[in-house]
Amino acid sequence: MLEELKAEVYKANMDLPKYGLVTFTWGNVSGIDRESGYFVIKPSGVEYDKLQVEDMVVVDLDGNKIEGRYNPSSDTLTHIELYKRYTEIGAIVHTHSRMAVTWSATGKNIPNYNTTHSDYFYGDILCARSLTKEEIEEAYEKNTGLVIIETLDENNINPMHNPGILCTNHGPFTWGKDANTAVHNSVVLEEVAIMAFNSELLSKDIKPAPSYIVNKHFMRKHGPNAYYGQ
Amino acid sequence: MLEELKAEVYKANMDLPKYGLVTFTWGNVSGIDRESGYFVIKPSGVEYDKLQVEDMVVVDLDGNKIEGRYNPSSDTLTHIELYKRYTEIGAIVHTHSRMAVTWSATGKNIPNYNTTHSDYFYGDILCARSLTKEEIEEAYEKNTGLVIIETLDENNINPMHNPGILCTNHGPFTWGKDANTAVHNSVVLEEVAIMAFNSELLSKDIKPAPSYIVNKHFMRKHGPNAYYGQ
Amino acid sequence: MLEELKAEVYKANMDLPKYGLVTFTWGNVSGIDRESGYFVIKPSGVEYDKLQVEDMVVVDLDGNKIEGRYNPSSDTLTHIELYKRYTEIGAIVHTHSRMAVTWSATGKNIPNYNTTHSDYFYGDILCARSLTKEEIEEAYEKNTGLVIIETLDENNINPMHNPGILCTNHGPFTWGKDANTAVHNSVVLEEVAIMAFNSELLSKDIKPAPSYIVNKHFMRKHGPNAYYGQ
Amino acid sequence: MLEELKAEVYKANMDLPKYGLVTFTWGNVSGIDRESGYFVIKPSGVEYDKLQVEDMVVVDLDGNKIEGRYNPSSDTLTHIELYKRYTEIGAIVHTHSRMAVTWSATGKNIPNYNTTHSDYFYGDILCARSLTKEEIEEAYEKNTGLVIIETLDENNINPMHNPGILCTNHGPFTWGKDANTAVHNSVVLEEVAIMAFNSELLSKDIKPAPSYIVNKHFMRKHGPNAYYGQ
Repeated sequence: MLEELKAEVYKANMDLPKYGLVTFTWGNVSGIDRESGYFVIKPSGVEYDKLQVEDMVVVDLDGNKIEGRYNPSSDTLTHIELYKRYTEIGAIVHTHSRMAVTWSATGKNIPNYNTTHSDYFYGDILCARSLTKEEIEEAYEKNTGLVIIETLDENNINPMHNPGILCTNHGPFTWGKDANTAVHNSVVLEEVAIMAFNSELLSKDIKPAPSYIVNKHFMRKHGPNAYYGQ
Repeated sequence: MLEELKAEVYKANMDLPKYGLVTFTWGNVSGIDRESGYFVIKPSGVEYDKLQVEDMVVVDLDGNKIEGRYNPSSDTLTHIELYKRYTEIGAIVHTHSRMAVTWSATGKNIPNYNTTHSDYFYGDILCARSLTKEEIEEAYEKNTGLVIIETLDENNINPMHNPGILCTNHGPFTWGKDANTAVHNSVVLEEVAIMAFNSELLSKDIKPAPSYIVNKHFMRKHGPNAYYGQ
Repeated sequence: MLEELKAEVYKANMDLPKYGLVTFTWGNVSGIDRESGYFVIKPSGVEYDKLQVEDMVVVDLDGNKIEGRYNPSSDTLTHIELYKRYTEIGAIVHTHSRMAVTWSATGKNIPNYNTTHSDYFYGDILCARSLTKEEIEEAYEKNTGLVIIETLDENNINPMHNPGILCTNHGPFTWGKDANTAVHNSVVLEEVAIMAFNSELLSKDIKPAPSYIVNKHFMRKHGPNAYYGQ
Repeated sequence: MLEELKAEVYKANMDLPKYGLVTFTWGNVSGIDRESGYFVIKPSGVEYDKLQVEDMVVVDLDGNKIEGRYNPSSDTLTHIELYKRYTEIGAIVHTHSRMAVTWSATGKNIPNYNTTHSDYFYGDILCARSLTKEEIEEAYEKNTGLVIIETLDENNINPMHNPGILCTNHGPFTWGKDANTAVHNSVVLEEVAIMAFNSELLSKDIKPAPSYIVNKHFMRKHGPNAYYGQ
């Protein structure tokens, strides 16, 4: 079942080590078929160089495994919360990419310092608060999804305008209309995290980019009169 | 038309990912044929691993597309301003290379700290001021070209002695007599940006290199009595 | 003799340059056969691109060479002390990986700032104290093993919960149930060292991750009710 | 003539880009035949991917070209001064490697912070003073050699115990008994420069490694009772 989606999600998973975003098994991609309500996700802890397209696991939005010989990613319940809330999302990516983890460890948002950031993320890349001891012990992965939603809600964020977030002490989640776009956004988030890190080291009194240049770059690529690309 | 120039510009575009200067589609090279007044430029938003020599777009200095099935780079109007003002320039490169973007985000010039810098850029690598809200909304890409010219003018810069510049919050533009040289200068600018960044981190009271060592290195390579090379 | 173990230790040694953990000959892996009490170790100073499986040296726990045409690694006596004290260890790795050496030079422990760290190392990655002049002159390599043990003892560390350590001014040692796992832990230690370094640069007042998130991540992977993986 | 030496020097030159020490043409290796007093050196400004063994230039210690269709490296006169003074040196390398240039720009010595440094360089890696305006204008390359000698002399350095140095605002020179060893020392110098840079960023009050651990590591590899290697 869902052979095309499996192939797409498999390829997207394999792109993570190709882009240098994962070491060993530290990452996962899922993609959803909105018609059936089933999504396809990487199996937990399987090494990338052994991963096959037929190892992808099919899960429903209640967390039941529908098909697959392996257990799904341990982060499956996080993906479910995001899919349930944001119906415009077609795919989700989680990694432990180096500089996104660095920002996550500090709990700081990544300020929008440049047009590369603005081309993909309209505002800051937010860092969701730490989970409490109770939230972690009760339902860690589910509550990770809920704290992401809480953060976007509190900041009135359209998830398609800010297709990624950090979780304090943990790392990044990104998303998009399909698996390829969601991985693309993970690459951008890591690249932007590196540039912002270096910018803060280089200048103690650095300021975010003015809103009008942010608007210009975001809108020429994503606005109603976009003219970037073909 | 302009088949030789297309091949040269195509190769130069493909060199950007090869040298690690671009992620995805974040860069473009153009080269001009001064006789016809037409220039060849990368199409907008086309991925490098799908780019073909026949995808190159031919444009005139009024911004009219002369040949090509794709839209030209969204930065085409910036290239035009530079070609019109500096007739000694044969090619232009724009990238979002990592450390050049970092410097751009701070608005700081890259001081000339070493002989590697001096071998290619006679003075500091300047950072053009932010565009105003009006300049951005009215004609962003054209005004990007004009602010580069304004910066070189105000500092009495010969563009062939300082073949590159940063734009605040955005990134680098470089140029040269031909596409290969312009890409070469992009590689140098990024390398020099990395070295200068590290030098400032290593020593809070670092000073630029003395003018006589800068002169020596620039002149032994580019002066009337140059003796570097064959 | 011990052909299977030699093949495993050889492969693990070859993985060190593959993972970017060694330059030239700066690293070694050993693995022990607990039944015979013999262990297999890389020969001293032999370059990785010339290393063959038959070059592996067999040594007993008194330091006698049992088989092999080469001298064993100069760090052999360090490995012996660790094997004698920790009978649950099946393999040991030493490298001069870049950021682990950096932390070692400062004598600081690597604080547990994130879940990547917590997935593999339960607490801080400790840095063993400097050896004294007498300890170095009398028996440098043996005393390196003893100071590692002293450090783990003083901090009541289960070596299987913290499978690696730094030695002041020197570099990292890691271990594991087998050679592949011990190398894996070297990769993790270096990656965690990089992330922690960057985190401290990014935020002067960074705090370690709360104990409950550390517990959650370590236990979901290594605890009695672990559910990460297959 | 000197076909074997040309092959060795050619290979050593080609190793510089392989080890990531040079961009474009920014480096050169020479090797000397002490019997004839001739040395072989890379031609000036020839790109590495076009370099052939027959392009190597033969020069005598007065700077006369003995054989070769190209001009020798523009740094030839620096090499000559070092060969004339240090008869135990068989080869010399100059690069613009990234972190060695960074330290050179600050004019600071690289302190000996770790055993990796101590395995190859007995003390600090010194940074020679800036040349004066007069020294540069009169005989830049020759005086670069002389200021290296002045620095080693003033610090009573045996060049075989400290096989490399930095020149302020410029970059590193290394040497060794043969071309392969001299390149090896360039790799080590860059690696040590990176580790020392990171160590100073990580800890403001870092101290050099104690002399007894430096002695131990240098002597177990290079002393009369050396036991590292085969």
